[in-house]
Amino acid sequence: MSDSGIYMEALKAHAEAKGKLSVESRIPVKDMHDLAVVYTPGVAEPCRKIKENPEDVYTYTTKGNMVAVVTDGSAVLGLGDIGPAAGLPVMEGKAVLFKRFAGVDAFPICVGSKDVDVIVETTAMIASGFGGVNLEDIAAPRCFEIERKLKERLDIPVFHDDQHGTAVIVLAGLLNSLKLVGKSIEDVKIVMNGAGAAGIAICKLLQSVGAGNVILCDRAGAIYEGRETNMNWIKKEMAEETNRGKESGTLADVIAGADVFLGISGPGLVTADMVRSMASNAVIFAMANPTPEIYPDEAMKAGAAVVATGRSDFPNQINNCLGFPGIFRGALDVRASDIDESMKLAAAYALAGLVSDDELSSERIIPEALDERVVPTVAKAVAEAARKAGIARA
Amino acid sequence: MSDSGIYMEALKAHAEAKGKLSVESRIPVKDMHDLAVVYTPGVAEPCRKIKENPEDVYTYTTKGNMVAVVTDGSAVLGLGDIGPAAGLPVMEGKAVLFKRFAGVDAFPICVGSKDVDVIVETTAMIASGFGGVNLEDIAAPRCFEIERKLKERLDIPVFHDDQHGTAVIVLAGLLNSLKLVGKSIEDVKIVMNGAGAAGIAICKLLQSVGAGNVILCDRAGAIYEGRETNMNWIKKEMAEETNRGKESGTLADVIAGADVFLGISGPGLVTADMVRSMASNAVIFAMANPTPEIYPDEAMKAGAAVVATGRSDFPNQINNCLGFPGIFRGALDVRASDIDESMKLAAAYALAGLVSDDELSSERIIPEALDERVVPTVAKAVAEAARKAGIARA
Repeated sequence: MSDSGIYMEALKAHAEAKGKLSVESRIPVKDMHDLAVVYTPGVAEPCRKIKENPEDVYTYTTKGNMVAVVTDGSAVLGLGDIGPAAGLPVMEGKAVLFKRFAGVDAFPICVGSKDVDVIVETTAMIASGFGGVNLEDIAAPRCFEIERKLKERLDIPVFHDDQHGTAVIVLAGLLNSLKLVGKSIEDVKIVMNGAGAAGIAICKLLQSVGAGNVILCDRAGAIYEGRETNMNWIKKEMAEETNRGKESGTLADVIAGADVFLGISGPGLVTADMVRSMASNAVIFAMANPTPEIYPDEAMKAGAAVVATGRSDFPNQINNCLGFPGIFRGALDVRASDIDESMKLAAAYALAGLVSDDELSSERIIPEALDERVVPTVAKAVAEAARKAGIARA
Repeated sequence: MSDSGIYMEALKAHAEAKGKLSVESRIPVKDMHDLAVVYTPGVAEPCRKIKENPEDVYTYTTKGNMVAVVTDGSAVLGLGDIGPAAGLPVMEGKAVLFKRFAGVDAFPICVGSKDVDVIVETTAMIASGFGGVNLEDIAAPRCFEIERKLKERLDIPVFHDDQHGTAVIVLAGLLNSLKLVGKSIEDVKIVMNGAGAAGIAICKLLQSVGAGNVILCDRAGAIYEGRETNMNWIKKEMAEETNRGKESGTLADVIAGADVFLGISGPGLVTADMVRSMASNAVIFAMANPTPEIYPDEAMKAGAAVVATGRSDFPNQINNCLGFPGIFRGALDVRASDIDESMKLAAAYALAGLVSDDELSSERIIPEALDERVVPTVAKAVAEAARKAGIARA
């Protein structure tokens, strides 16, 4: 179906359903007796129990399975800063995915401010009703500060999916791609285009597993220590931690000789010539949506060994449904107080492990989004990692 | 069933269900195509439409049918200040009732502060995702200020059910009771016990329909202009507007000669002697829960003509399910920007009108909670009132 076809269909479906969410009761209410169970006088008893023992809130309420999907609407899909109300369809969609993939209840919280402290304060103030916070579509670099402050303040997992969900899936796909081409992550030259939330998080996660040669680019080209144009505090931090050779220049300049290209940038930004300038058996993740940095057939023709995109109509889709549902499922299952680095790495390795050596091919470096093994496998690995890290509470 | 029986059953039901709420999708998601409709790329189109025309948020999202149930947990049922987490079972229960009675989606927002401005700010910040705000179980007199500030700030209905829902139902029941005993609201002496959220709101609503002789009491007895003990700003305000004869003394002192007693106070506070001291054909609403100010049989034996309570095992139950579901249904149906006095009065008259003159008796002054005519009838009256008031937007 064409993009305009799916847009029209989505518009119609949203209007007919009058939005996507329905809040329903887990306990049927048919008569006055049922009313007395779910409301007064019966409901007073779970209230008393929770007052006596605060942990009982996990036993008698939905908190332990409820995630707040928090946004300020400042970086929604590729639409940019459209505000909290216009971002609501995406947040409702995210809640639908949480339920569909992981049985997690999720609810959109659209905050009417782009001030870091207001978003932090608002989220913290309503956190007692939630078992976790999924930050969504908040622009960089604000998103990093919001996440850090909320993590410090709350005793429930806070997870910015655009950052860490994407990073986990990219790492899983990259590990399998490198296995396929027989290269090691310590040795390869990785060039990334896009220094927003996802780009920064991918970069950090790759470095945490030993990637030693990463160059991050933005619109102004390679980011290096001492660059002065188009910088912000997080790019400055990344400049110190990446690009050891201090390569400067355009993406076309620095991609030459690279083993891996990771794009979370814009349509058509990588040419066939650029792919030809890369090392042999190049791995390309062209994840711009809906139009990738380069189409798979063009990249393969230019010599790439593996190509992944964000699209479901090509092989190797980097789909965020491979990440956040299982990650939150695992964290909630053991009532983890955080989603830490070890849990993210466990998720990535579990995801990568779902493609067996026999199956592994240039068209299969990552499971498909609807593969039913994904969520339970990732959840189990994440829960185990939380236990090992000593942050599981159940 | 005994109270302890229902408490144990409620505890078991809450634990088995792991809380009462489930967030579900109104659009089925079976395959990749469905995913593309509810999420990327399709979802981008409703986002774009809302960005172009903010009112479209009512067309493409759940906002128009979604109510935030906001509390600080400071006055939960008869349990008092148990905090936001311990109050969650009641807020979930309220959401269940919203759905069961009126098809309204509702979601608990438990705010971790008792500061008026923090509660106002937090609620205002997340309001873009909601079509209305139901304030719940917030202690007086803070609740009055929170409601006033939120009403000023938001363009969606803000309604403190403990105040106005209760007041609407009491007014409906009282109008029918007075019709039964052949007295008029302008002439009767009304004594109320309880100067919390409900008491104040009932008092104001009764005065708005012409009740001219109301005496409000609290623990310290009758509230009168110039009283100095146990006062706060709202009681001072009420002292100026009620009790024209400046009667002082205990409840027992001022109830003598009264035509109507309305109790939103505590168990057993009214004696048979006090009822005997009232005017003939006295009307008594003994609404303390679960133990009323006086039991109906005792009050009837002492000469009362009509007795209502908060309990479902006696006639004339003042059940809040008679009010808020239809009131919100009506307000949401016409996208009202407020729930104003005219809408509350319309709800009360519609509710009273559901008891025909033929049916009207001392055991039937108000419809039963599960009467299926209540919500549509109240909703229609409320919607019409909103249109007349010029605050309907659809």
